[in-house]
Amino acid sequence: MSDTVVVGLDVGGTSTRAAALSLDGARLGEGRAGGGNPTSHGADRAAAELLAALRAALAGIDPTRVRAGVIGLAGAGRLLADPNGRDAFDSAWAEAGLRCPYAVHGDALVAYASGTAAPDGTVLIAGTGAIAAQVRDLRLDRVADGHGWLLGDAGSGFWLGREAVRRLLTGLDRAQAPGDLGRRVLAELTGATAVDDRPRATVDAVVQAVTRRPPVELARLAPLVVSSARDGEPTAVALIAEAAAALAQSVSRIRPPGAADPVVLGGGLLTGDTPLAGAVRAELAGRWPDAPLLSAGDGAAAAAWLAARDLPEVTDPAALHARLVPPPA
Amino acid sequence: MSDTVVVGLDVGGTSTRAAALSLDGARLGEGRAGGGNPTSHGADRAAAELLAALRAALAGIDPTRVRAGVIGLAGAGRLLADPNGRDAFDSAWAEAGLRCPYAVHGDALVAYASGTAAPDGTVLIAGTGAIAAQVRDLRLDRVADGHGWLLGDAGSGFWLGREAVRRLLTGLDRAQAPGDLGRRVLAELTGATAVDDRPRATVDAVVQAVTRRPPVELARLAPLVVSSARDGEPTAVALIAEAAAALAQSVSRIRPPGAADPVVLGGGLLTGDTPLAGAVRAELAGRWPDAPLLSAGDGAAAAAWLAARDLPEVTDPAALHARLVPPPA
Repeated sequence: MSDTVVVGLDVGGTSTRAAALSLDGARLGEGRAGGGNPTSHGADRAAAELLAALRAALAGIDPTRVRAGVIGLAGAGRLLADPNGRDAFDSAWAEAGLRCPYAVHGDALVAYASGTAAPDGTVLIAGTGAIAAQVRDLRLDRVADGHGWLLGDAGSGFWLGREAVRRLLTGLDRAQAPGDLGRRVLAELTGATAVDDRPRATVDAVVQAVTRRPPVELARLAPLVVSSARDGEPTAVALIAEAAAALAQSVSRIRPPGAADPVVLGGGLLTGDTPLAGAVRAELAGRWPDAPLLSAGDGAAAAAWLAARDLPEVTDPAALHARLVPPPA
Repeated sequence: MSDTVVVGLDVGGTSTRAAALSLDGARLGEGRAGGGNPTSHGADRAAAELLAALRAALAGIDPTRVRAGVIGLAGAGRLLADPNGRDAFDSAWAEAGLRCPYAVHGDALVAYASGTAAPDGTVLIAGTGAIAAQVRDLRLDRVADGHGWLLGDAGSGFWLGREAVRRLLTGLDRAQAPGDLGRRVLAELTGATAVDDRPRATVDAVVQAVTRRPPVELARLAPLVVSSARDGEPTAVALIAEAAAALAQSVSRIRPPGAADPVVLGGGLLTGDTPLAGAVRAELAGRWPDAPLLSAGDGAAAAAWLAARDLPEVTDPAALHARLVPPPA
């Protein structure tokens, strides 16, 4: 049995996860730290979180056993283009005692690899934002959306939250009483539990509550839409259907008709048994009936697998994937 | 002939205009100053611009002849609710030598009154933002949209600019070469005169160029859409049609079917012979075939008329409107 250890890191906006695995699939260590996206947090802060997660994962492990590593993060291209960012990550890597090289991949590729070992396929991610990408030979190829909340992210958590507020406002303009979702959005934004009999005063209060905060915080309303849709609330059900159609539309921009390779669904809105995941699966199954629809799983383990598959002793990457990357719960 | 003078002010985000008129329609003075919206500029700055415009309009006029005044501005309700804002405007009014009272009205009411003397009707304004309002007895009644760029302003200049960028980005995602409008948007945002053969690099450059500036500056792309639509560019023509439908939809939320009272079109995108004005007129004529469709005109004169009509010697406000408010050029 190999003494070789591989490490993988999944660096997200709100948390950083690290995993150290042996090639027979033993999970030797795990680490977790705060958000480390260098684009949103700065390279030094990101590198500090990376180091904290790495140290926790490597506790009790001789670091010279580590032969390969992969860091998955959003904006990987920007990190690699920035000498300061690359230096900060190099230093954290060395401070953790690691002497092997590491590679940096986009978080979308790591999400894809957490769902399948197939070299070619599609990944669709919907969380706060939304992005779809084609994967060719385990590299990101064409990309759709990921344009950010101002210009895109159609079908994302931000989009769901913004559209829920828009429906509330247009209903108030029509002097209609808000439905259940509208009342929940109103309570969340303004604390109001009853609707003022002056609709314009309510409109102004809602607009002011939203514009007081960073726009991206509209994504915090997405769970209200999801839970209302579970209850069958009509506006929420309609928004989920629209979001699913928008996400499938993004996939259509880059995925050929009739493709039979897998589609991996990732991000908080598409992993697990959510109404949006169900609606997206139905949209995708209608357009690509022969494609396996898979769920993203453990990103840190998938990053470790991506690191391991280039080692000379790895002859069957698919079998290694089955050992290293646990199927989604 | 009356010795009475009335003054009107139209306070906008980019300029403040003042007019001093006699009741027989003689234009005694005009003034212009910088943007004075208290919401965006602060009450003190707004009051300083107001005073500058007032002084210019009143040059050579005995201020004791001024018997009434109206200030029209966006966010009038917020000004009146804020004691500091009200104090700043009171002080400017007194510093200009005026002893008569003044009233503050929303810019939408002033735009309406610049197009008609009819006490009841609808005003639709599309500039950087977009708002529609019902007018009842020359007071603003129900309002639709005006929710700001993040949540609304459907069919506005901001909306046109953002949608033009969105069309460019989704086309690049599909690896399609941009059309004429897309190339103009790309050149305006990035300076690129040729499209990179790596669409994702172009996408990133566009997203970065937009997100470096305040979002509302997307409205600066609206003139490209308007001029491309004049040339028959298909994407621009489609965007203008969508914007017109969205603006008519906002009106539909508040204006009863079959209403025959006038609709006044205001704002930079709807005054004059613009493609959007033409498309909006067609939409409105289809929905309200009996309604006169009018164009907003001189806001400062309209504000002066709103001030004058409450004077005891004014017995025929419509005739006074014909004397005081010049028809749009």
